[in-house]
Amino acid sequence: MRILGIDPGLRTTGFGVIQKQGNHLTYVASGTIKTTEGSLPERLKTILASVSEVVSTYQPDCAAIEIVFVNVNPQSTLLLGQARGAAICALVAADLAVAEYTALQVKQGVVGHGRAKKEQVQDMVQRLLKLSGKPSPDAADALGVAICHAHSGEALATLSAIAPELAKKGLRVKGGRLIG
Amino acid sequence: MRILGIDPGLRTTGFGVIQKQGNHLTYVASGTIKTTEGSLPERLKTILASVSEVVSTYQPDCAAIEIVFVNVNPQSTLLLGQARGAAICALVAADLAVAEYTALQVKQGVVGHGRAKKEQVQDMVQRLLKLSGKPSPDAADALGVAICHAHSGEALATLSAIAPELAKKGLRVKGGRLIG
Repeated sequence: MRILGIDPGLRTTGFGVIQKQGNHLTYVASGTIKTTEGSLPERLKTILASVSEVVSTYQPDCAAIEIVFVNVNPQSTLLLGQARGAAICALVAADLAVAEYTALQVKQGVVGHGRAKKEQVQDMVQRLLKLSGKPSPDAADALGVAICHAHSGEALATLSAIAPELAKKGLRVKGGRLIG
Repeated sequence: MRILGIDPGLRTTGFGVIQKQGNHLTYVASGTIKTTEGSLPERLKTILASVSEVVSTYQPDCAAIEIVFVNVNPQSTLLLGQARGAAICALVAADLAVAEYTALQVKQGVVGHGRAKKEQVQDMVQRLLKLSGKPSPDAADALGVAICHAHSGEALATLSAIAPELAKKGLRVKGGRLIG
């Protein structure tokens, strides 16, 4: 079960891909998509195309995206919403099921409590996925969303949902694990 | 020159397609895309797929979308942003140039002044495009955005931009008109 996590933003969209086998999580890839120049439609196009490229490169089985809350001003809320909409479009266009988690849920799932700071999320993501270096804050958040989804049991539910399909290929799902 | 206008929304997205030949505008199609059920990713998928279908059915040369302003609460602003992002994604995925106009610009362009009411926009759209019936408010707004773009000279600029391409086919652009 391969999970793609997304931390949406107009300037920077973080992505993180992890592999879940039973209770074991492995790092696959992570990075950031930057869009600082151009008109809004052009920037949304970059997000759409880049997330689509991540999907086609790493072939995740499901996706999870952070639920964003900002209230600096309505204009920036609207811009963030459009960026998040573009990222979700890239996921649903690839027929991926998209789960949504709040920052609070991600912090609880990764660090263990909702008051965790950004650095603590980065540290725990690094430890959980045995990374040699600390991921950037946006990539860490994206990996955190993916980890949160891996722990939620929903990823398992997704695997169960496609069980009949897998059965045709001679595969079974047991305890979140694929058995050949 | 065929123009697709979009009035974005999460519950209802209006669309309108018009044909511009010189200064003459003709109605091609209009309608609304409704998404009232399902999760947010599912609703965004419906908007993305439906606007894409409008594009592939009516083959517009360019697109224009209304700039939305709402400030009921940050949550609804965020939802509207995501819906608008999905509509723009469908346009840019089809490589359409996307112009943006405020409701004020649309009212000025269609009715002649920015304080016009919704019914006045509907009436003027009906008269300008010689429609037998009054379009729905959302379809009228979408047609209004397309009309606004047709009048703005930007649509003409788009036609000029593809002039070298047209020349290869033995066509010329003169006063916004295609000459065979």
